[in-house]
Amino acid sequence: MSGTLSPFSSVAILGPGLLGGSVALAVRRYLPDMEIRLWARRQAPLDEAAAMSITPHLFTDISSAVAGAELIILATPVGCFEDLSVRMLPSIAPGALVTDVGSVKAYVHRTSGALLHAHGVSFIGSHPMAGSEKQGLSAACQDLFVGAGIVLTNDQEAPPELLNRLAAFWTALGGRCLNMEAGLHDRTVARISHVPHVLAALCARNAVADGNQKDLRELASTGFRDTTRVCSGAPGMWADILWENDVAVRKSLSSCVDDLRELSRLLETQDKAGVERWLANARSAREQILFPREK
Amino acid sequence: MSGTLSPFSSVAILGPGLLGGSVALAVRRYLPDMEIRLWARRQAPLDEAAAMSITPHLFTDISSAVAGAELIILATPVGCFEDLSVRMLPSIAPGALVTDVGSVKAYVHRTSGALLHAHGVSFIGSHPMAGSEKQGLSAACQDLFVGAGIVLTNDQEAPPELLNRLAAFWTALGGRCLNMEAGLHDRTVARISHVPHVLAALCARNAVADGNQKDLRELASTGFRDTTRVCSGAPGMWADILWENDVAVRKSLSSCVDDLRELSRLLETQDKAGVERWLANARSAREQILFPREK
Repeated sequence: MSGTLSPFSSVAILGPGLLGGSVALAVRRYLPDMEIRLWARRQAPLDEAAAMSITPHLFTDISSAVAGAELIILATPVGCFEDLSVRMLPSIAPGALVTDVGSVKAYVHRTSGALLHAHGVSFIGSHPMAGSEKQGLSAACQDLFVGAGIVLTNDQEAPPELLNRLAAFWTALGGRCLNMEAGLHDRTVARISHVPHVLAALCARNAVADGNQKDLRELASTGFRDTTRVCSGAPGMWADILWENDVAVRKSLSSCVDDLRELSRLLETQDKAGVERWLANARSAREQILFPREK
Repeated sequence: MSGTLSPFSSVAILGPGLLGGSVALAVRRYLPDMEIRLWARRQAPLDEAAAMSITPHLFTDISSAVAGAELIILATPVGCFEDLSVRMLPSIAPGALVTDVGSVKAYVHRTSGALLHAHGVSFIGSHPMAGSEKQGLSAACQDLFVGAGIVLTNDQEAPPELLNRLAAFWTALGGRCLNMEAGLHDRTVARISHVPHVLAALCARNAVADGNQKDLRELASTGFRDTTRVCSGAPGMWADILWENDVAVRKSLSSCVDDLRELSRLLETQDKAGVERWLANARSAREQILFPREK
Protein backbone atom coordinates (compact mmCIF):
# COMPACT_ATOMS: atom_id res chain seq x y z
CA MET A 1 0.00 0.00 0.00
CA SER A 2 1.61 3.24 -1.12
CA GLY A 3 0.99 6.80 0.11
CA THR A 4 1.23 6.00 3.83
CA LEU A 5 1.30 9.06 6.07
CA SER A 6 3.44 7.49 8.77
CA PRO A 7 7.23 7.70 8.72
CA PHE A 8 7.30 3.98 9.62
CA SER A 9 4.74 1.37 8.58
CA SER A 10 4.90 -0.51 11.88
CA VAL A 11 6.12 -0.07 15.44
CA ALA A 12 6.95 -2.68 18.06
CA ILE A 13 6.67 -1.24 21.56
CA LEU A 14 8.49 -3.31 24.17
CA GLY A 15 6.96 -2.66 27.57
CA PRO A 16 3.43 -1.18 27.63
CA GLY A 17 3.76 0.87 30.85
CA LEU A 18 3.01 4.56 31.23
CA LEU A 19 5.35 5.66 28.44
CA GLY A 20 5.07 2.65 26.13
CA GLY A 21 1.30 2.61 26.56
CA SER A 22 1.09 6.34 25.86
CA VAL A 23 3.14 5.88 22.67
CA ALA A 24 0.70 3.16 21.60
CA LEU A 25 -2.35 5.31 22.31
CA ALA A 26 -0.78 8.32 20.57
CA VAL A 27 0.11 6.24 17.48
CA ARG A 28 -3.43 4.86 17.34
CA ARG A 29 -4.76 8.42 17.46
CA TYR A 30 -2.26 10.39 15.35
CA LEU A 31 -0.74 7.79 13.01
CA PRO A 32 -3.69 5.47 12.50
CA ASP A 33 -2.19 3.77 9.44
CA MET A 34 0.76 2.47 11.47
CA GLU A 35 0.67 -1.13 12.70
CA ILE A 36 1.15 -1.32 16.48
CA ARG A 37 2.75 -4.35 18.14
CA LEU A 38 3.03 -4.63 21.89
CA TRP A 39 5.37 -6.93 23.74
CA ALA A 40 5.32 -7.56 27.48
CA ARG A 41 7.13 -10.12 29.59
CA ARG A 42 3.89 -11.04 31.33
CA GLN A 43 0.40 -11.63 29.96
CA ALA A 44 -1.43 -9.28 32.38
CA PRO A 45 -0.53 -5.93 30.73
CA LEU A 46 -1.35 -7.45 27.33
CA ASP A 47 -4.80 -8.42 28.58
CA GLU A 48 -5.22 -4.85 29.78
CA ALA A 49 -4.12 -3.56 26.35
CA ALA A 50 -6.61 -5.92 24.71
CA ALA A 51 -9.40 -4.63 26.94
CA MET A 52 -8.47 -1.08 25.85
CA SER A 53 -8.59 -2.18 22.15
CA ILE A 54 -5.20 -0.63 21.53
CA THR A 55 -4.13 -3.23 18.98
CA PRO A 56 -4.73 -6.90 18.20
CA HIS A 57 -0.95 -7.54 17.86
CA LEU A 58 0.06 -8.64 21.34
CA PHE A 59 3.12 -10.72 22.13
CA THR A 60 4.98 -12.30 25.02
CA ASP A 61 7.50 -13.73 22.53
CA ILE A 62 9.98 -11.00 21.64
CA SER A 63 11.13 -12.52 18.32
CA SER A 64 7.59 -12.49 16.95
CA ALA A 65 7.00 -8.97 18.32
CA VAL A 66 9.92 -7.33 16.52
CA ALA A 67 10.02 -9.44 13.33
CA GLY A 68 9.16 -7.15 10.42
CA ALA A 69 8.73 -4.01 12.54
CA GLU A 70 10.27 -0.88 10.98
CA LEU A 71 10.54 0.91 14.32
CA ILE A 72 11.27 -0.81 17.64
CA ILE A 73 10.87 1.15 20.87
CA LEU A 74 12.46 -0.01 24.13
CA ALA A 75 10.01 1.15 26.81
CA THR A 76 10.85 -1.10 29.75
CA PRO A 77 13.04 0.10 32.63
CA VAL A 78 16.45 1.14 31.23
CA GLY A 79 18.16 -1.69 33.11
CA CYS A 80 16.39 -4.26 30.87
CA PHE A 81 17.39 -2.69 27.52
CA GLU A 82 20.63 -4.59 27.05
CA ASP A 83 19.11 -7.98 27.71
CA LEU A 84 16.18 -7.21 25.39
CA SER A 85 18.59 -6.05 22.69
CA VAL A 86 20.50 -9.31 22.84
CA ARG A 87 17.31 -11.36 22.68
CA MET A 88 15.72 -9.50 19.79
CA LEU A 89 18.88 -9.09 17.66
CA PRO A 90 18.34 -12.19 15.44
CA SER A 91 14.77 -11.11 14.58
CA ILE A 92 15.28 -7.42 13.74
CA ALA A 93 14.37 -6.71 10.11
CA PRO A 94 17.08 -5.20 7.87
CA GLY A 95 16.77 -1.41 7.81
CA ALA A 96 14.73 -1.25 11.03
CA LEU A 97 15.44 1.46 13.56
CA VAL A 98 15.64 0.84 17.30
CA THR A 99 14.97 3.67 19.76
CA ASP A 100 13.99 3.91 23.42
CA VAL A 101 12.21 6.22 25.86
CA GLY A 102 14.75 6.06 28.69
CA SER A 103 15.60 9.03 30.91
CA VAL A 104 19.35 8.61 30.57
CA LYS A 105 21.20 8.37 27.29
CA ALA A 106 24.99 7.92 27.66
CA TYR A 107 24.48 4.60 29.46
CA VAL A 108 22.03 3.39 26.79
CA HIS A 109 24.38 4.28 23.93
CA ARG A 110 27.30 2.66 25.74
CA THR A 111 25.35 -0.60 26.19
CA SER A 112 22.42 -1.33 23.83
CA GLY A 113 23.43 1.28 21.26
CA ALA A 114 26.95 -0.12 20.91
CA LEU A 115 25.69 -3.70 20.81
CA LEU A 116 23.11 -3.05 18.09
CA HIS A 117 25.53 -0.89 16.09
CA ALA A 118 28.15 -3.65 16.19
CA HIS A 119 25.56 -5.95 14.58
CA GLY A 120 24.62 -3.47 11.87
CA VAL A 121 21.35 -2.33 13.49
CA SER A 122 20.63 1.42 13.68
CA PHE A 123 19.96 2.87 17.13
CA ILE A 124 19.00 6.45 17.98
CA GLY A 125 18.09 7.34 21.56
CA SER A 126 14.85 9.19 22.41
CA HIS A 127 13.97 10.85 25.68
CA PRO A 128 10.44 12.24 25.79
CA MET A 129 10.37 14.90 28.53
CA ALA A 130 6.94 13.79 29.62
CA GLY A 131 5.75 11.59 32.40
CA SER A 132 3.63 11.37 35.47
CA GLU A 133 4.08 10.32 39.06
CA LYS A 134 1.59 7.57 38.15
CA GLN A 135 2.65 4.28 36.62
CA GLY A 136 1.42 1.59 34.29
CA LEU A 137 -0.78 1.27 31.26
CA SER A 138 -3.84 2.51 33.15
CA ALA A 139 -2.14 5.92 33.52
CA ALA A 140 -1.22 6.07 29.81
CA CYS A 141 -2.56 8.98 27.81
CA GLN A 142 -2.66 9.60 24.07
CA ASP A 143 -1.69 13.26 24.51
CA LEU A 144 1.23 12.70 26.89
CA PHE A 145 3.69 13.93 24.25
CA VAL A 146 1.76 16.98 23.04
CA GLY A 147 4.02 19.97 23.57
CA ALA A 148 6.72 17.84 25.22
CA GLY A 149 10.39 18.19 24.33
CA ILE A 150 11.80 14.98 22.82
CA VAL A 151 15.59 14.71 22.90
CA LEU A 152 17.10 12.61 20.14
CA THR A 153 20.63 11.33 20.67
CA ASN A 154 22.43 9.93 17.66
CA ASP A 155 25.80 9.09 19.19
CA GLN A 156 26.14 5.94 17.06
CA GLU A 157 25.67 8.14 13.97
CA ALA A 158 22.74 6.39 12.34
CA PRO A 159 21.94 7.71 8.84
CA PRO A 160 20.37 11.21 8.79
CA GLU A 161 17.40 9.82 6.89
CA LEU A 162 16.51 7.62 9.89
CA LEU A 163 16.99 10.53 12.28
CA ASN A 164 14.56 12.57 10.18
CA ARG A 165 11.98 9.80 10.15
CA LEU A 166 12.26 9.33 13.91
CA ALA A 167 11.81 13.09 14.39
CA ALA A 168 8.76 12.98 12.09
CA PHE A 169 7.34 10.14 14.21
CA TRP A 170 7.61 12.03 17.50
CA THR A 171 6.43 15.27 15.88
CA ALA A 172 3.30 13.47 14.67
CA LEU A 173 2.65 12.49 18.31
CA GLY A 174 2.85 16.17 19.32
CA GLY A 175 6.46 16.39 20.50
CA ARG A 176 9.10 19.03 19.78
CA CYS A 177 12.31 17.24 18.82
CA LEU A 178 15.81 18.42 19.48
CA ASN A 179 19.13 16.72 18.85
CA MET A 180 21.73 16.50 21.58
CA GLU A 181 24.86 14.55 22.34
CA ALA A 182 24.07 11.87 24.97
CA GLY A 183 26.56 13.13 27.57
CA LEU A 184 25.25 16.71 27.38
CA HIS A 185 21.71 15.37 27.64
CA ASP A 186 22.55 13.47 30.82
CA ARG A 187 24.25 16.45 32.47
CA THR A 188 21.33 18.70 31.54
CA VAL A 189 18.57 16.35 32.76
CA ALA A 190 20.52 15.80 35.97
CA ARG A 191 20.00 19.50 36.67
CA ILE A 192 16.46 19.95 35.33
CA SER A 193 14.88 16.62 36.29
CA HIS A 194 16.94 14.15 38.35
CA VAL A 195 18.24 16.53 41.02
CA PRO A 196 14.82 18.25 41.26
CA HIS A 197 13.44 14.78 42.00
CA VAL A 198 16.05 14.30 44.72
CA LEU A 199 15.29 17.71 46.23
CA ALA A 200 11.54 17.01 46.26
CA ALA A 201 12.29 13.74 48.05
CA LEU A 202 14.68 15.50 50.44
CA CYS A 203 11.93 17.99 51.24
CA ALA A 204 9.50 15.21 52.23
CA ARG A 205 12.17 13.29 54.18
CA ASN A 206 13.25 16.39 56.04
CA ALA A 207 9.68 17.27 57.01
CA VAL A 208 9.32 14.12 59.08
CA ALA A 209 12.89 14.17 60.38
CA ASP A 210 11.94 14.82 63.97
CA GLY A 211 8.54 13.35 64.64
CA ASN A 212 5.35 15.23 65.50
CA GLN A 213 3.40 14.13 62.40
CA LYS A 214 0.07 15.51 63.52
CA ASP A 215 1.16 19.15 63.53
CA LEU A 216 2.85 18.70 60.15
CA ARG A 217 -0.41 17.48 58.68
CA GLU A 218 -2.26 20.49 60.00
CA LEU A 219 0.32 22.92 58.70
CA ALA A 220 1.04 21.43 55.27
CA SER A 221 -0.29 23.64 52.49
CA THR A 222 -0.23 23.69 48.69
CA GLY A 223 3.41 24.80 48.71
CA PHE A 224 4.55 21.59 50.38
CA ARG A 225 2.25 19.54 48.16
CA ASP A 226 3.68 21.00 44.93
CA THR A 227 7.32 21.10 46.00
CA THR A 228 7.21 17.38 46.83
CA ARG A 229 4.82 16.21 44.07
CA VAL A 230 7.34 14.41 41.88
CA CYS A 231 8.71 12.30 44.72
CA SER A 232 5.51 10.24 44.56
CA GLY A 233 7.09 8.67 41.46
CA ALA A 234 8.05 5.00 41.66
CA PRO A 235 11.13 4.66 43.91
CA GLY A 236 12.44 1.66 41.96
CA MET A 237 12.27 3.45 38.62
CA TRP A 238 13.89 6.57 40.06
CA ALA A 239 16.61 4.61 41.81
CA ASP A 240 17.43 3.18 38.35
CA ILE A 241 17.49 6.65 36.79
CA LEU A 242 19.76 8.12 39.48
CA TRP A 243 21.94 5.05 39.31
CA GLU A 244 22.30 5.19 35.52
CA ASN A 245 23.07 8.92 35.59
CA ASP A 246 25.13 8.61 38.73
CA VAL A 247 28.17 10.73 37.79
CA ALA A 248 26.20 13.79 36.66
CA VAL A 249 23.77 13.47 39.57
CA ARG A 250 26.49 13.25 42.22
CA LYS A 251 28.32 16.24 40.76
CA SER A 252 25.12 18.27 40.88
CA LEU A 253 24.27 17.09 44.43
CA SER A 254 27.68 18.22 45.55
CA SER A 255 26.96 21.73 44.19
CA CYS A 256 23.64 21.66 46.04
CA VAL A 257 25.39 20.89 49.32
CA ASP A 258 27.74 23.83 48.78
CA ASP A 259 24.86 26.14 47.92
CA LEU A 260 22.84 25.14 51.01
CA ARG A 261 25.88 25.78 53.17
CA GLU A 262 26.29 29.18 51.56
CA LEU A 263 22.71 30.07 52.51
CA SER A 264 23.28 28.85 56.08
CA ARG A 265 26.38 31.03 56.24
CA LEU A 266 24.41 34.06 55.04
CA LEU A 267 21.79 33.45 57.73
CA GLU A 268 24.39 32.85 60.41
CA THR A 269 26.33 36.02 59.60
CA GLN A 270 23.05 37.97 59.47
CA ASP A 271 23.64 39.00 55.86
CA LYS A 272 19.99 39.70 55.09
CA ALA A 273 20.76 41.32 51.74
CA GLY A 274 22.74 38.21 50.82
CA VAL A 275 19.79 35.94 51.70
CA GLU A 276 17.47 38.08 49.60
CA ARG A 277 19.93 37.94 46.69
CA TRP A 278 20.19 34.15 47.05
CA LEU A 279 16.41 33.88 46.79
CA ALA A 280 16.11 36.49 44.02
CA ASN A 281 18.63 34.61 41.88
CA ALA A 282 16.53 31.48 42.32
CA ARG A 283 13.41 33.28 41.17
CA SER A 284 15.09 34.74 38.11
CA ALA A 285 16.67 31.37 37.26
CA ARG A 286 13.21 29.80 37.33
CA GLU A 287 11.76 32.55 35.16
CA GLN A 288 14.59 32.34 32.64
CA ILE A 289 13.95 28.63 32.24
CA LEU A 290 10.17 28.55 32.25
CA PHE A 291 9.24 31.94 30.83
CA PRO A 292 12.07 33.12 28.59
CA ARG A 293 11.41 36.43 26.83
CA GLU A 294 13.03 35.05 23.72
CA LYS A 295 14.41 31.67 22.73
CA MET B 1 -26.63 47.60 68.02
CA SER B 2 -27.13 44.23 69.71
CA GLY B 3 -27.37 40.76 68.19
CA THR B 4 -24.27 41.06 66.05
CA LEU B 5 -23.11 37.78 64.47
CA SER B 6 -19.43 38.68 64.45
CA PRO B 7 -17.09 37.85 67.31
CA PHE B 8 -15.76 41.42 67.05
CA SER B 9 -17.72 44.49 65.96
CA SER B 10 -14.81 46.03 64.07
CA VAL B 11 -11.42 45.09 62.66
CA ALA B 12 -8.47 47.32 61.77
CA ILE B 13 -6.23 45.64 59.19
CA LEU B 14 -2.77 47.15 59.03
CA GLY B 15 -1.26 46.48 55.61
CA PRO B 16 -3.70 45.56 52.81
CA GLY B 17 -1.40 43.25 50.83
CA LEU B 18 -2.19 39.71 49.75
CA LEU B 19 -3.02 38.48 53.27
CA GLY B 20 -4.43 41.69 54.75
CA GLY B 21 -6.48 42.29 51.62
CA SER B 22 -7.77 38.71 51.66
CA VAL B 23 -8.81 39.11 55.31
CA ALA B 24 -10.71 42.27 54.36
CA LEU B 25 -12.47 40.59 51.42
CA ALA B 26 -13.29 37.52 53.54
CA VAL B 27 -14.72 39.68 56.36
CA ARG B 28 -16.84 41.62 53.85
CA ARG B 29 -18.16 38.31 52.52
CA TYR B 30 -18.52 36.17 55.65
CA LEU B 31 -18.88 38.68 58.49
CA PRO B 32 -20.76 41.49 56.77
CA ASP B 33 -21.85 43.19 60.00
CA MET B 34 -18.23 43.80 61.00
CA GLU B 35 -16.75 47.24 60.38
CA ILE B 36 -13.57 47.04 58.31
CA ARG B 37 -10.80 49.61 58.65
CA LEU B 38 -7.73 49.53 56.46
CA TRP B 39 -4.46 51.24 57.19
CA ALA B 40 -1.55 51.57 54.78
CA ARG B 41 1.63 53.61 54.95
CA ARG B 42 1.06 54.90 51.42
CA GLN B 43 -2.09 56.15 49.72
CA ALA B 44 -1.82 53.93 46.62
CA PRO B 45 -3.07 50.64 48.12
CA LEU B 46 -5.90 52.54 49.81
CA ASP B 47 -6.96 53.95 46.44
CA GLU B 48 -6.92 50.41 45.11
CA ALA B 49 -9.03 49.25 48.08
CA ALA B 50 -11.46 52.13 47.40
CA ALA B 51 -11.74 51.09 43.76
CA MET B 52 -12.58 47.56 44.93
CA SER B 53 -15.27 48.98 47.31
CA ILE B 54 -13.85 46.95 50.18
CA THR B 55 -14.67 49.55 52.81
CA PRO B 56 -15.02 53.33 53.13
CA HIS B 57 -12.80 53.38 56.26
CA LEU B 58 -9.33 53.99 54.84
CA PHE B 59 -6.45 55.51 56.81
CA THR B 60 -2.82 56.49 56.45
CA ASP B 61 -2.88 57.70 60.07
CA ILE B 62 -2.44 54.70 62.33
CA SER B 63 -3.97 56.27 65.45
CA SER B 64 -7.26 56.94 63.66
CA ALA B 65 -7.18 53.49 62.09
CA VAL B 66 -6.98 51.55 65.35
CA ALA B 67 -8.99 53.88 67.63
CA GLY B 68 -12.11 52.01 68.71
CA ALA B 69 -11.31 48.80 66.79
CA GLU B 70 -12.04 45.60 68.74
CA LEU B 71 -9.64 43.51 66.67
CA ILE B 72 -6.38 44.80 65.19
CA ILE B 73 -4.50 42.66 62.66
CA LEU B 74 -0.85 43.27 61.83
CA ALA B 75 -0.56 42.29 58.16
CA THR B 76 2.58 44.13 57.06
CA PRO B 77 5.95 42.36 56.77
CA VAL B 78 6.86 40.91 60.18
CA GLY B 79 9.84 43.27 60.45
CA CYS B 80 7.45 46.25 60.76
CA PHE B 81 5.29 44.82 63.57
CA GLU B 82 7.30 46.21 66.46
CA ASP B 83 7.41 49.74 65.10
CA LEU B 84 3.67 49.66 64.34
CA SER B 85 2.95 48.34 67.82
CA VAL B 86 4.82 51.24 69.41
CA ARG B 87 3.04 53.78 67.24
CA MET B 88 -0.47 52.45 67.78
CA LEU B 89 -0.16 51.71 71.51
CA PRO B 90 -1.65 55.02 72.76
CA SER B 91 -4.75 54.62 70.56
CA ILE B 92 -5.68 51.00 71.20
CA ALA B 93 -9.12 50.74 72.83
CA PRO B 94 -9.36 49.01 76.22
CA GLY B 95 -10.24 45.33 75.76
CA ALA B 96 -9.13 45.26 72.13
CA LEU B 97 -7.21 42.24 70.85
CA VAL B 98 -4.15 42.50 68.61
CA THR B 99 -3.19 39.63 66.32
CA ASP B 100 -1.06 39.22 63.19
CA VAL B 101 -0.72 37.05 60.10
CA GLY B 102 3.04 36.55 60.21
CA SER B 103 4.78 33.30 59.20
CA VAL B 104 6.96 33.14 62.31
CA LYS B 105 5.66 33.35 65.85
CA ALA B 106 8.41 33.16 68.52
CA TYR B 107 10.01 36.37 67.21
CA VAL B 108 6.65 38.17 67.15
CA HIS B 109 5.81 37.16 70.71
CA ARG B 110 9.30 38.12 71.87
CA THR B 111 8.96 41.63 70.34
CA SER B 112 5.44 42.99 69.68
CA GLY B 113 3.69 40.48 71.92
CA ALA B 114 5.88 41.32 74.92
CA LEU B 115 5.61 45.06 74.29
CA LEU B 116 1.82 45.05 74.03
CA HIS B 117 1.46 42.72 77.01
CA ALA B 118 3.65 45.01 79.13
CA HIS B 119 1.19 47.82 78.37
CA GLY B 120 -1.88 45.76 79.22
CA VAL B 121 -2.90 45.02 75.62
CA SER B 122 -3.83 41.44 74.71
CA PHE B 123 -1.90 39.83 71.86
CA ILE B 124 -2.46 36.39 70.32
CA GLY B 125 -0.46 35.34 67.25
CA SER B 126 -2.18 33.96 64.14
CA HIS B 127 -0.53 32.19 61.24
CA PRO B 128 -2.91 31.41 58.40
CA MET B 129 -1.31 28.57 56.38
CA ALA B 130 -2.48 30.12 53.15
CA GLY B 131 -0.75 32.25 50.60
CA SER B 132 0.29 32.54 47.03
CA GLU B 133 3.47 33.22 45.13
CA LYS B 134 1.66 36.40 43.99
CA GLN B 135 1.72 39.59 46.01
CA GLY B 136 -0.38 42.63 46.78
CA LEU B 137 -4.03 43.53 47.11
CA SER B 138 -4.72 42.66 43.47
CA ALA B 139 -3.93 39.01 44.27
CA ALA B 140 -6.19 39.03 47.37
CA CYS B 141 -9.02 36.53 47.44
CA GLN B 142 -12.05 36.26 49.76
CA ASP B 143 -11.70 32.48 49.95
CA LEU B 144 -7.97 32.36 50.64
CA PHE B 145 -8.62 30.97 54.15
CA VAL B 146 -11.25 28.40 53.25
CA GLY B 147 -9.94 25.05 54.41
CA ALA B 148 -6.63 26.56 55.54
CA GLY B 149 -5.02 25.68 58.86
CA ILE B 150 -4.76 28.73 61.15
CA VAL B 151 -2.26 28.37 63.98
CA LEU B 152 -3.05 30.44 67.08
CA THR B 153 -0.20 31.09 69.50
CA ASN B 154 -1.11 32.42 72.91
CA ASP B 155 2.31 32.59 74.52
CA GLN B 156 1.43 35.83 76.40
CA GLU B 157 -1.57 34.00 77.87
CA ALA B 158 -4.35 36.32 76.81
CA PRO B 159 -7.75 35.46 78.38
CA PRO B 160 -9.34 32.26 76.97
CA GLU B 161 -12.43 34.29 76.07
CA LEU B 162 -10.34 36.33 73.60
CA LEU B 163 -8.72 33.18 72.21
CA ASN B 164 -12.18 31.73 71.60
CA ARG B 165 -13.38 34.90 69.85
CA LEU B 166 -10.27 34.97 67.66
CA ALA B 167 -10.82 31.31 66.74
CA ALA B 168 -14.46 32.12 65.93
CA PHE B 169 -13.28 34.96 63.69
CA TRP B 170 -10.94 32.76 61.62
CA THR B 171 -13.45 29.92 61.55
CA ALA B 172 -16.04 32.30 60.09
CA LEU B 173 -13.54 33.05 57.31
CA GLY B 174 -13.25 29.33 56.54
CA GLY B 175 -10.10 28.43 58.51
CA ARG B 176 -9.43 25.45 60.79
CA CYS B 177 -7.84 26.76 63.98
CA LEU B 178 -5.31 24.97 66.12
CA ASN B 179 -3.42 26.18 69.15
CA MET B 180 0.30 25.75 69.39
CA GLU B 181 3.20 27.10 71.40
CA ALA B 182 5.13 29.64 69.28
CA GLY B 183 8.46 27.80 69.40
CA LEU B 184 6.91 24.49 68.28
CA HIS B 185 5.09 26.36 65.53
CA ASP B 186 8.36 27.81 64.25
CA ARG B 187 10.18 24.48 64.26
CA THR B 188 7.27 22.82 62.49
CA VAL B 189 6.85 25.47 59.78
CA ALA B 190 10.61 25.45 59.22
CA ARG B 191 10.22 21.84 58.10
CA ILE B 192 6.90 22.05 56.25
CA SER B 193 7.17 25.50 54.68
CA HIS B 194 10.43 27.45 55.09
CA VAL B 195 12.89 24.70 54.18
CA PRO B 196 10.65 23.54 51.29
CA HIS B 197 10.90 27.12 50.04
CA VAL B 198 14.69 26.97 50.29
CA LEU B 199 14.81 23.60 48.49
CA ALA B 200 12.59 24.90 45.67
CA ALA B 201 14.95 27.87 45.33
CA LEU B 202 17.98 25.58 45.47
CA CYS B 203 16.46 23.50 42.69
CA ALA B 204 16.13 26.56 40.41
CA ARG B 205 19.61 27.88 41.32
CA ASN B 206 21.21 24.51 40.70
CA ALA B 207 19.54 24.15 37.30
CA VAL B 208 21.40 27.18 35.92
CA ALA B 209 24.61 26.45 37.81
CA ASP B 210 26.66 25.72 34.74
CA GLY B 211 25.27 27.65 31.82
CA ASN B 212 23.57 26.24 28.71
CA GLN B 213 20.17 27.89 29.32
CA LYS B 214 18.73 26.98 25.94
CA ASP B 215 18.84 23.23 26.49
CA LEU B 216 17.40 23.65 29.99
CA ARG B 217 14.42 25.49 28.55
CA GLU B 218 13.78 22.73 26.07
CA LEU B 219 14.05 20.01 28.70
CA ALA B 220 12.12 21.61 31.56
CA SER B 221 8.82 19.85 32.17
CA THR B 222 5.96 20.07 34.66
CA GLY B 223 8.09 18.37 37.33
CA PHE B 224 10.60 21.22 37.36
CA ARG B 225 7.79 23.78 37.20
CA ASP B 226 6.00 22.35 40.25
CA THR B 227 9.09 21.58 42.32
CA THR B 228 10.24 25.20 41.99
CA ARG B 229 6.85 26.95 42.04
CA VAL B 230 7.03 28.48 45.50
CA CYS B 231 10.39 30.13 44.86
CA SER B 232 8.59 32.68 42.68
CA GLY B 233 7.47 34.21 45.98
CA ALA B 234 8.83 37.66 46.87
CA PRO B 235 12.53 37.29 47.80
CA GLY B 236 12.36 40.20 50.27
CA MET B 237 9.43 38.73 52.15
CA TRP B 238 11.03 35.27 52.24
CA ALA B 239 14.40 36.64 53.32
CA ASP B 240 12.51 38.17 56.27
CA ILE B 241 10.81 34.87 57.05
CA LEU B 242 14.05 32.84 56.96
CA TRP B 243 15.78 35.54 58.97
CA GLU B 244 13.11 35.63 61.65
CA ASN B 245 13.05 31.83 61.90
CA ASP B 246 16.80 31.57 61.48
CA VAL B 247 17.63 29.05 64.23
CA ALA B 248 15.04 26.45 63.24
CA VAL B 249 15.76 26.93 59.53
CA ARG B 250 19.53 26.49 59.92
CA LYS B 251 19.08 23.38 62.03
CA SER B 252 16.84 21.88 59.36
CA LEU B 253 19.19 22.90 56.51
CA SER B 254 22.01 21.16 58.30
CA SER B 255 19.96 17.92 58.38
CA CYS B 256 19.30 18.39 54.66
CA VAL B 257 23.02 18.61 53.93
CA ASP B 258 23.62 15.38 55.86
CA ASP B 259 20.78 13.64 54.05
CA LEU B 260 22.02 14.71 50.58
CA ARG B 261 25.46 13.42 51.45
CA GLU B 262 23.94 10.13 52.55
CA LEU B 263 22.28 9.77 49.14
CA SER B 264 25.55 10.60 47.38
CA ARG B 265 27.29 7.96 49.44
CA LEU B 266 24.63 5.37 48.50
CA LEU B 267 25.13 6.21 44.82
CA GLU B 268 28.89 6.18 45.11
CA THR B 269 29.00 2.81 46.87
CA GLN B 270 26.53 1.43 44.31
CA ASP B 271 23.99 0.60 47.01
CA LYS B 272 21.00 0.54 44.68
CA ALA B 273 18.66 -0.94 47.30
CA GLY B 274 19.71 1.89 49.63
CA VAL B 275 18.89 4.53 47.00
CA GLU B 276 15.49 2.95 46.44
CA ARG B 277 14.85 2.91 50.19
CA TRP B 278 15.90 6.58 50.45
CA LEU B 279 13.35 7.46 47.76
CA ALA B 280 10.64 5.15 49.12
CA ASN B 281 10.92 6.75 52.57
CA ALA B 282 10.43 10.15 50.92
CA ARG B 283 7.30 8.97 49.17
CA SER B 284 5.80 7.49 52.31
CA ALA B 285 6.68 10.64 54.31
CA ARG B 286 4.81 12.72 51.75
CA GLU B 287 1.81 10.41 51.85
CA GLN B 288 1.71 10.36 55.65
CA ILE B 289 1.60 14.15 55.70
CA LEU B 290 -0.77 14.84 52.83
CA PHE B 291 -2.98 11.76 52.79
CA PRO B 292 -3.07 10.32 56.31
CA ARG B 293 -5.31 7.27 56.72
CA GLU B 294 -6.46 8.60 60.05
CA LYS B 295 -5.83 11.82 61.92
